[in-house]
This record gives sequence, structure tokens and C-alpha cells, in this order.
Amino acid sequence: MDEASLKLKIKEQGDKVRVLKTQKAEKDIVEAEVAILLEYKKQLENVTGESGSSSKSKNKFVLKTPKGTRDYNEKEMAIREKIFNTITGVFKKHGAVTIDTPVFELKEILAGKYGEDSKLIYDLDDQGGEKCSLRYDLTVPFARFLAMNGTQYQNIKRYQIAKVYRRDQPAMTKGRMREFYQCDFDVAGSYDPMVADSEVIRIMYECLTALNIGKFTIKINHRKILDGIFEVCGVPENSLRPISSAVDKLDKLPWEDVKKEMTDEKGLDPSIADQIGEYVKYKGGRELLEKLMNDQKLSSNKNAKTGMDDMKILFDYLEIFKILDKVSFELSLARGLDYYTGIIYEAVTEQSGPPTLADGTQITRKTKKESDELDESTVGVGSIAAGGRYDNLVGMFASSKKGNIPCVGVSIGVERVFSILLQKAKLEEVKANEVEVYVMSVVDGLLEERMRICAELWDAGIKAEFMYKAKPKLQAQFSVCDRDQIPFAVIIGKDELSRGEIKVKDMRSKEQGEGGGVLVKRTEMISELKKRLQALSS
Amino acid sequence: MDEASLKLKIKEQGDKVRVLKTQKAEKDIVEAEVAILLEYKKQLENVTGESGSSSKSKNKFVLKTPKGTRDYNEKEMAIREKIFNTITGVFKKHGAVTIDTPVFELKEILAGKYGEDSKLIYDLDDQGGEKCSLRYDLTVPFARFLAMNGTQYQNIKRYQIAKVYRRDQPAMTKGRMREFYQCDFDVAGSYDPMVADSEVIRIMYECLTALNIGKFTIKINHRKILDGIFEVCGVPENSLRPISSAVDKLDKLPWEDVKKEMTDEKGLDPSIADQIGEYVKYKGGRELLEKLMNDQKLSSNKNAKTGMDDMKILFDYLEIFKILDKVSFELSLARGLDYYTGIIYEAVTEQSGPPTLADGTQITRKTKKESDELDESTVGVGSIAAGGRYDNLVGMFASSKKGNIPCVGVSIGVERVFSILLQKAKLEEVKANEVEVYVMSVVDGLLEERMRICAELWDAGIKAEFMYKAKPKLQAQFSVCDRDQIPFAVIIGKDELSRGEIKVKDMRSKEQGEGGGVLVKRTEMISELKKRLQALSS
Repeated sequence: MDEASLKLKIKEQGDKVRVLKTQKAEKDIVEAEVAILLEYKKQLENVTGESGSSSKSKNKFVLKTPKGTRDYNEKEMAIREKIFNTITGVFKKHGAVTIDTPVFELKEILAGKYGEDSKLIYDLDDQGGEKCSLRYDLTVPFARFLAMNGTQYQNIKRYQIAKVYRRDQPAMTKGRMREFYQCDFDVAGSYDPMVADSEVIRIMYECLTALNIGKFTIKINHRKILDGIFEVCGVPENSLRPISSAVDKLDKLPWEDVKKEMTDEKGLDPSIADQIGEYVKYKGGRELLEKLMNDQKLSSNKNAKTGMDDMKILFDYLEIFKILDKVSFELSLARGLDYYTGIIYEAVTEQSGPPTLADGTQITRKTKKESDELDESTVGVGSIAAGGRYDNLVGMFASSKKGNIPCVGVSIGVERVFSILLQKAKLEEVKANEVEVYVMSVVDGLLEERMRICAELWDAGIKAEFMYKAKPKLQAQFSVCDRDQIPFAVIIGKDELSRGEIKVKDMRSKEQGEGGGVLVKRTEMISELKKRLQALSS
Repeated sequence: MDEASLKLKIKEQGDKVRVLKTQKAEKDIVEAEVAILLEYKKQLENVTGESGSSSKSKNKFVLKTPKGTRDYNEKEMAIREKIFNTITGVFKKHGAVTIDTPVFELKEILAGKYGEDSKLIYDLDDQGGEKCSLRYDLTVPFARFLAMNGTQYQNIKRYQIAKVYRRDQPAMTKGRMREFYQCDFDVAGSYDPMVADSEVIRIMYECLTALNIGKFTIKINHRKILDGIFEVCGVPENSLRPISSAVDKLDKLPWEDVKKEMTDEKGLDPSIADQIGEYVKYKGGRELLEKLMNDQKLSSNKNAKTGMDDMKILFDYLEIFKILDKVSFELSLARGLDYYTGIIYEAVTEQSGPPTLADGTQITRKTKKESDELDESTVGVGSIAAGGRYDNLVGMFASSKKGNIPCVGVSIGVERVFSILLQKAKLEEVKANEVEVYVMSVVDGLLEERMRICAELWDAGIKAEFMYKAKPKLQAQFSVCDRDQIPFAVIIGKDELSRGEIKVKDMRSKEQGEGGGVLVKRTEMISELKKRLQALSS
């Protein structure tokens, strides 16, 4: 955009933000619109070479988080913690343990693992000493951990929920972040075929169900079947991965565009592309596998045969795990990452439609690149969980072939889950604190008495607060209960205290009026509150 | 050390490690000794300019984590999670919420906050764009957050448990880390004096008690009393902080050394130093405060008067909170950080003695520097929690005086707690997984049947595992139960299954023998297991 249109945009967007603020719109909506405004201002700065606002000169500091990062406030954190607890609950039900790795790794550990996307790796400044980079995902550090501790960890079911870093082009308006969470579950070890694989898919299913993010489908395919198809169609061996990555775009692009990429960009014979086009149309279940197995050409290909044998076993196991009806065998599923060697899968949800920009344009998923993968940095679009089997990654770190450990895993797109649940939740209604009882006084302040009662409650394990003021107004104390959704109040007054009594008030029953509440003997306060809290939680 | 002595050290240390490995010593002990070995090798490398081992050429990668960082395995993580859960439980009981800030900040946000230690800040490589640094602590990002969101957060009780980064000289053998956790609780807001302060100290007390780390004492002092003492003794105004930082070393150095620093290094008149020396000897409780208040010279000093008035109120509140007997008013407590403005405190534990190096020398706390503070990167030495009031830090970020928000907080030294609890725990006895039931077969494998039963258990919310093998040996399955401390097993056999029965075995009662267990109808399996699990947890 040129300077004039940008200035117009900034004016319009500024008005929009002001209106939203006047209407007291939800904070995350306002923030999203402010982000767009800032993006326009930034663009203007780039065009004109000067700052679009004078705030910089007024402040001693530019008060912001780095590009592509953000703070999460207490209500957002409450949602996030609930997500993490739900997911770890499922992982632990299946016997998983967690490990922790440093946020940065030696640069050479990450080198050569992410193809073209390596340019997105954040390096630490060379301040003398080792060259380090922030982790780009959790899979490579896990593989490094296994290779380092291989003798002890010939098999492990591990999960890790942690932040990863990608120095991607900033597009905050599109919700793309440079710092974001990944949530990985992986099973390492040599086992009988498809057993671990089927449990990983079951875990993916259990997580997404427990997260309550709406309907979803799990697409499944097998890298070896894909490779077999490419081989029988006549794709040259060194084109297998590029052609696979073209197929991976079929969920975003029509076949014509994908074919064009295969032929024009990647030099594939159009007749070969057409043959592939026939195969990748297929989706289904056991009957599709049957059909492929009856395909003489395909079943005589070694790769395809191995893949189809795996799929047959997998279908049986998924049926035992009661999730066969949740999966769809789709030959167009290719998954971006090079390191997959067997089963691959991806869960897509109906809820994950792209958000809309201020100018009404829909945000589309970032253009797929050679080594694209589950793009967890993009909010609200694409797959919600994905993974597969990668049997050779650990071997890349091991000094001998013996050091290799086959793995299969899944990454739950927690940032997408977060954005879906954030859209659903009314942020102002989220209870971030866990306070159960607010201790307040009617008049006279009675600060020390309020403190004494709080200490009693804490000693009894009751979550309690009081106002840090000597003489707080009653209405101010009620407002806190209201704002923080505190269910009960202990209300004290001089007269009651002298009689050895306090009042317990259920703050959710507004009709009682401010003077309401039940007189309780001071000595019975704890048991009365415990009784009420128990009733509340059951 | 010269080359010859280093080579000797490496040989000795290598032997030690081998012996420990042969004796199957605890993993963390072996690791600590290996770290020492690696440190010597590194030193040799520095001396000779060549690699001390040939491992580099054999491996495709140097398989290690960056200097000053490490992985945490599943058992260490189980201990760590327990610590975090205990602490957050206390924080939440007091109404705290959590926020999240990025792992890196704009470089200018951190600049000028850490004095000399600023050289320890990790910078990100300048890959074009903003200049960023890894966070050095959680306090400055919190102050930045408050200044950015001041209108919404005039008051907040927030905690944050997250990793921070300090590019300190590597001394893995001393347990000093470049990546380590901090755990901060802070109350921001303008309140009546000492109310929030006393609750923060109560929270510190509750955390350390709940963590079960042994006896501890909370030392308390007030920056304004210290400043008042310095002023009445005649310390020039621009020497207040340097002299304070000299006093801060009194817990490590004898008075003579501290005095020498004051006079020789910092040019203080020896007679003034002697006067200070009289004051900083004092420790006690209310009676000490009384004594100071009766000191005419001191009570006529404005700073000292303010501090003593605060202390009087604080003593009352700590008594109400039932922790007065846990604190010790010590005039020698100064705390390193410049930004404290009021009450300061530090908890010290008897358990936190320094660990011993391989050569028998005791590790001493790092030499205190100008802006030293709770050094959480050092394992097992010094204070276990510390904090204070800092009323002006947020103002450093705010554009106007109105934007300032006074704060008081505490940092729990979770890394030290971790090292204390790690020393106490027998690592091999820590149960990292939470599996309740292991589903196994006597003979014939019965893989699909084991999977079917597991799915039933998962659906019922029972944490269950099975072996990923078609025909696992019974003994191998028992070994897993043993290793992972799984309390119950469901054992299946062809005959039992055909009669609609399975066996439930309590794995903790070894005397039953491998054939043991109780026959249960397949239809009653879930209720039987739930009954047993409930009995286990109660």
C-alpha cells in the first residue's frame, strides 16, 4: 500500500479501536484490532521512514514485547492451564512421563534438520563460547536426548509441553507468533508393528475429545504407500520427496495447481502426474485398503506392500481401540516433514476456520513450502494435531547404527486449541483466581481481625483473601467478590465479634441483599465453610 | 592447572566414574562426577588447544547440551513437578494468579537494571530486526508488564515460575547453571503499610514449610533503617549503596574484611565504619526495635524513623499471622539488589550446606559483587528464598509518575529446594509414571485382548499400560510392574477368558508368587479395580 492509503487505513482502524473500547468490547478482540493498527503503522513507518506516532519520544522506553511475542494475562493463563492439565491427564493415563530439555541447543544439533526453514532458527549472539540456537521444535531435542542417553532409554513414552521459537516474518495480524507452545507425545522403542502407533492415535483422539473443541476427523496415510504409488507411477527416485510435498498441498489447492507444480516446477512428466492424480483422490476405510491391495501394480511394489500390510494391522488395532470410525484413510495426506517413515496422521476440526482481517479478507494458511509441517504458529487454521512414525531421526545423532531408536509421536496444536477455546469463552467470565472466601468488615475496618480470620482459614487449607486496607468500604469489598467470582464471604462487625459470632454469606445469591448472610459461631466458622465448600464442589 | 596435573586429574576422575558405574551408583551422582570429568577435559582442551578425547571425530555430532544447561529426566521432573505444585498450591490459597511473559525481551528493557551483572545477559543474534535478550529474572519483565498494562493492573497478586538465563562463567562442577528456574510471587498495588508485606512473608513461610526442606529462619531488615544508620554514622550520600553492599557480605565474611572493603576499597573513614560495625551486630525481635527507637540519634533520622515505624507494624501483623517466632530482625541483612526500598527478607535453611568437590574442597558461594542478589543459580548454598519491597521499579518503565505501582515480593529458590530434595530422595525409588494397572498375559501373547482390556480401563479413567509385544514373556511384564512401581496387574489367560474371567493381582504383595491374583468376572473388572484403587489412595 502507498502512504496515502496506509494513512487512511490507520485512521479507519483507529476509529474502529476507539469504538470497540467505548463499547467495552472483549479485551482479546480489542487487542487483535490494536495489533492490526500497529501493523499498519509499522508499514507506514517502513514506507515513510519515520515513526507513525510520537509515543516513542514521550516514553523512556518503547514498552512492548518483541515482535511475534506477547504476554498472557491471568485469564488467558487460566484457560491455558486447563488445556495443559487436560492433555497431561490423558498422557499420564497412558503411562507417559515428562522430561525437560534446555530452551537452547548447540547450533550444530539443529543444523540440517529443518531444510529450508533452517533460516527461521533464532541464534544466540556469539558472546564467546559455544554457538547456540533457540529450539525450533521439541522433536529434535528429544532425539538428541535419546541419542545421548540411549542405553537407559531404549524405550520411553514421554511428553513435553514447552515453548519453541521461529524467527518467521512477523504477521501478528494473522496470529502468527515467533514464540509459541508445542505439546508433543512420543513413544520411542522397537516394538511389534503398529501397536505403539495405534495407541498414539488413540491418545490423539482422547486429547481432542477431552478438550471439547468440537467435531474432528483424523486423516491417516502411510509414507510407504505414497512412495509406492509414486514409484509405480514412474516418479524418479530423487523426485519422491518434492512430489510428496506437492501432494501435501492438496488440502489447500485444487488438483490443477498441484499438478502444475509437479510438472512445471518439478519437471514431472504430465502423464505420470495424471496417474498420481487418480490415486490421491481416494479416501475411505478398510474397503479402500482392499481396493489398493487388489491393485496388481501397487501390491507388487515393495514399499506399497509394506505400507498396506501396516495399514491392515492398524485398522484392526484402531477397531479394538474403538476409534476406527473416527479415522479416514486419505491418499492425499502427505505431511511436510521429511523425517516421517511410516504411518502419518493429522486431525482437522470444523471449528478451525481462518479468522477474518479488518478489511474483510480471510486469512489463508501460509503458503506451503518445501518442508512445511503442522504450522502451530498460525492461529485457528489448518490441522489441530498431527504426527507420524519417524524411525531414523535418532540415528542421525547416534554414533553407530545400534544407537538408532525408532519413534512414533503426535503433536497437539495447543496454540490452536487455545485460540478456539478463547473464542468460545467469554474472557471476563473466566475465574482466574481460586479464592473461596473473602473476609470483609461492615464498618470500622477491623483490619487485624480480618487478618486473624484469614490466617485461620489458610491454616485450615481454605483459599481466602482480605482487602489490604485499614478501613475499606463495604461496597468495594463486595465488588471484589463480584469481579473475582468469590463464592463465599465471611463478614465481621464489632457487635457480632463481641458475641463470638461472624456472618457467612453466599455471594452467589444476590437476592439476600448486602446485609444478608447467616450468623455462625466464630468457633464453628471453619466447619461451616468447609461444609459449604464441599457442597459447592460436588 | 598445568597440562600434566590436568591429565592426572582426568585419569583419576575417569577411574572414579568407572568405579561408580560398576557399582551402579545413583544416576545423579554419576552425572555429577562425569560433569567434573568433562570440565577437566575442557580445561585440558583450553591448555593444549586440542580435544582431550577422540569422541568428537567418531560422532557425527558433539552430543551434549550447551554449557551451563542440562536435561532433566523423568524422575527429576517428578520431583520438580511436586515442588511446583506445592508452591503454586500455597500461592493460589492466597488468591494469586499467574501471567506469562516471553522468554526474551527487548534489550533496552533489561538495560540498566542489573548494574555490573548486565554483562551476564544473553543477547540474541542480530539477525535483522529488534535487538533482544533472554530474560535475566522475572521481576523486570513483571514490572514491564505492569507499566504496559497499568490501567488494568493497579493491583495484582501474581506468581510466575519460569526459566531465566545468565551467561555466567561455567562452573558445572559447582552446580552453577546458565539456565535455571525462578519462582516469584509479587503483590503490586498501593495499600496500607505492611499489610501486603506481612502476607508475602507468611506465604514464604507457608511455602518453605510445605516443601519440607527442614528447619529455616527468616531474616528481616528494612532498607530505610539501614540507610538511617549509615546516615547517622556519617556515610556520604553517594556511598550509601556501596556501603550497603559491603554490609551484605557479613553472612560470608568476618567484620574485619567487610570493614576493609568499606575503608580501603570504598574510602570510608574508619571511625564511621566502626560505628556501623556496632549497629550491624544487632539481631533480635521486638526488644531490638525498642532499643533502636530509644536511640536518640537514630530516631531523629527521617529514614530510620520511617523504617522503624514500618517494623513496629510488621511485628504486629506477623504475630497475627502466627509467624513472629520464625523471623529474626537482623541489622546485617542488606540484600544486594539496588531496587529495594523497604522491608527486605531472606530465608536460610540449615540443610543448605555447600556440596563437596571431587578433590574434597568445599564449594563456597560465589564472591559477592556490587549488585549480587539471591543467587539461585548456585545449588545448595546460601538463602532458600528472599525478597523485599521495591516501590520504584515499575516507575522506571512508566511514562509519568502516575504510572508507578509499588510492589513487594518474594522469590523461592526452587533450584535449591530441588537440590535439597534430590539429595533426600532415592532417585530410583521415585515413581515418575502414574500407571495404576498393567495388563499382561500369562502365555500366548493375547495382544489384541490386552489392548481391548486397556481401552476399557482408559474409558473408565484408569491409568493403564500393556507391553507393545505380540508375545511378551511373563517375567518381562512383571519386571515392568516392578520397575515402574505399578500397584495392580490384570492377568489374562486363554482358559480364564473363555470362562469370562480375568485375574487381578496386587503387585505390592510379593508373597503371592507369580501365579497369584484373584479371579474376577470380566464384567466386574472395572468395579473391582476402582474399589482397590480407592482403598490405595485413602
